[in-house]
Amino acid sequence: DHSFDPNEHQHVRYNPLCGDWVLVSPHRTKRPWAGQVERPSQQDPPRYDPANPLCPGVPRPNGKINPDYQSTYVFPNDFPALLDDSPSPPDDGKDDSLFQWGAARGECRVMCFHPHTDITLPLMTQAEVRAVIDRWIEELEDLGKKHLWVQIFENKGAIMGCSNPHPHCQIWASSFLPNEPRMKDHNQRQYYLNHGTPMLMDYVAREMEKQERIVVTTDCWVALVPFWATWPFEVMVLPSHRHISRMTQLSSQERDSLALLVKKLTTKYDNLFECSFPYSMGWHGAPTGPRLKDFEADKYWVFHGCYYPPLLRSATVKKFMVGYEMLAQAQRDLTPEQAACRLRELPDEHYKLKNK
Amino acid sequence: DHSFDPNEHQHVRYNPLCGDWVLVSPHRTKRPWAGQVERPSQQDPPRYDPANPLCPGVPRPNGKINPDYQSTYVFPNDFPALLDDSPSPPDDGKDDSLFQWGAARGECRVMCFHPHTDITLPLMTQAEVRAVIDRWIEELEDLGKKHLWVQIFENKGAIMGCSNPHPHCQIWASSFLPNEPRMKDHNQRQYYLNHGTPMLMDYVAREMEKQERIVVTTDCWVALVPFWATWPFEVMVLPSHRHISRMTQLSSQERDSLALLVKKLTTKYDNLFECSFPYSMGWHGAPTGPRLKDFEADKYWVFHGCYYPPLLRSATVKKFMVGYEMLAQAQRDLTPEQAACRLRELPDEHYKLKNK
Ligand SMILES: O=P(O)(O)O[C@H]1O[C@H](CO)[C@@H](O)[C@H](O)[C@H]1O
Ligand SMILES: O=P(O)(O)O[C@H]1O[C@H](CO)[C@@H](O)[C@H](O)[C@H]1O
Repeated sequence: DHSFDPNEHQHVRYNPLCGDWVLVSPHRTKRPWAGQVERPSQQDPPRYDPANPLCPGVPRPNGKINPDYQSTYVFPNDFPALLDDSPSPPDDGKDDSLFQWGAARGECRVMCFHPHTDITLPLMTQAEVRAVIDRWIEELEDLGKKHLWVQIFENKGAIMGCSNPHPHCQIWASSFLPNEPRMKDHNQRQYYLNHGTPMLMDYVAREMEKQERIVVTTDCWVALVPFWATWPFEVMVLPSHRHISRMTQLSSQERDSLALLVKKLTTKYDNLFECSFPYSMGWHGAPTGPRLKDFEADKYWVFHGCYYPPLLRSATVKKFMVGYEMLAQAQRDLTPEQAACRLRELPDEHYKLKNK
Repeated sequence: DHSFDPNEHQHVRYNPLCGDWVLVSPHRTKRPWAGQVERPSQQDPPRYDPANPLCPGVPRPNGKINPDYQSTYVFPNDFPALLDDSPSPPDDGKDDSLFQWGAARGECRVMCFHPHTDITLPLMTQAEVRAVIDRWIEELEDLGKKHLWVQIFENKGAIMGCSNPHPHCQIWASSFLPNEPRMKDHNQRQYYLNHGTPMLMDYVAREMEKQERIVVTTDCWVALVPFWATWPFEVMVLPSHRHISRMTQLSSQERDSLALLVKKLTTKYDNLFECSFPYSMGWHGAPTGPRLKDFEADKYWVFHGCYYPPLLRSATVKKFMVGYEMLAQAQRDLTPEQAACRLRELPDEHYKLKNK
């Protein structure tokens, strides 16, 4: 009759935002790894490469030449997954419960963060990161006029399918509410109806009390490993001082404070395995679009960021979300508390800047 | 005013089994690929390797020596994610809507398919595949006595996190119903309440009429690319002649017929890019366990297999399910109909056996 220790004993945890569960098996960190090892990411890409279509002044595959941009730069994706003028499927599929399809319209853009290929977010100044945040907000305002959902996301590193080392993200805006935000909308709405308060504001308040999963804080923001994290070093970014439902609501001070948080978090990420830390990340907030005025969503949505990094043990060993995870349920080895502790204890100074 | 062509124009499709949507962007197949390329899988592993802990007669890390097995061989996983005697978390988390956890108990086993490391499923005889199916059913019967869910799954290939080339699968049995089967249970139940028939039997009947997504059939089974497939060459295996809710219900003829189907499907997979085709696959059927007798689940559950292969363009270029997919919604380029057509037209003879 030993007693339960979450850092020793398996259990399941519930994700109230997405409505699913994760299996936590901390005893399994002892397992040796004989599987696939990733190639370490090519160190230090050149600052400027005349063959890189994301660099200033370089022609893109469609023949257009990038301007000599000095800060951020946004252009339409040359191979968009979403077009704005595609014909719609016939209505006959609408009521067929087994073969149901629908129209999809949208726009895809690419956004460069900085003119230099070797300057990733943690290596930028706070002011440069602030310029990225300002541009995200401008794009959200612009695309959000027309589109119900604007997904800003960054795939970083070859291991995350990113084909270009230049610091950049993508923005895919759509006429439909995609699965993930649809579920988050549903669950935040239900919580609000039951409790009268926004779920994630209640959550962040309790995390600030508990302190065990906090990674970094700035005056307006907190980065934490959520109680229900599935990826080993998954992090959620949340407002800690007031309820914000959409990125467009950020004050100047909140933008500066978020810039500092992003810089600190990505610095810790790079310091963890002393590599340019790969991840997919993105921002979620209340839906946009012309239907906006009918929406109650602002009351229950809390704006937040999601970081999903694949690495588990080192710069070359990742967590595979495969068989059991695809067929049954996400499984993790190290606990969210252990992950938060490791990240929290890392220095705030980037390993590449140490000797400068 | 051009008219809608599903093989040309973007749209969304609904997955009635899981309750989510996929974005289909067929125009995007024209996109060039400059991203990460996988190492081709090591060709032809040796038939026997005295250092491989899955081979007959070889000691495993825990010191136990594998018997000199001649057909299938099952043993407990030496690094199980689920143990059967772990202490439970305290009850205080049960009613906390933000920090909810629960007990997880279970068992993990490993099952070798064949004594020879170089003999994968498509290279086995039909009788050898039948022995694998018989053993799956035995394990399901055994573990299903106690456990609510028995997940049989195979991770094949280094790209799928598989660390050992020896043909094998895993079986993780749990005290809880994991997310994926829980959603499938919910949606199949709803459909049954609304229509009075099992969803997937209605579905398979309509697919057999339409014929556009069928890959292989045998007298009792069909392998098809589901209308709502997310992975490029995803395939679902379904009973085509009668309603079967759990693998344990298979007659001898149905087992033989399934063995033939598995052999034909995996042969086509290998022939697609002339490589040992990687995937994660697994079987889903009505839940098991002591609660079984109370269950109505047999009425609405249809036993089926799911194949999720990562490759997209060649043996070395995979589909990355990253940024947009993780934050918003799965996206595919080639349509399920195009994928089915390519697989269907491949020869039934394995490329490695051609010159024999
Ligand atoms: O059990 P294995 O083969 O060591 O591990 C593999 O399959 C498991 C079940 O899908 C995953 O949780 C692991 O991430 C993966 O590496
Ligand atoms: O748009 P990219 O960078 O070419 O493509 C990458 O990100 C997309 C959005 O997450 C994914 O659909 C692709 O599979 C991935 O390779």
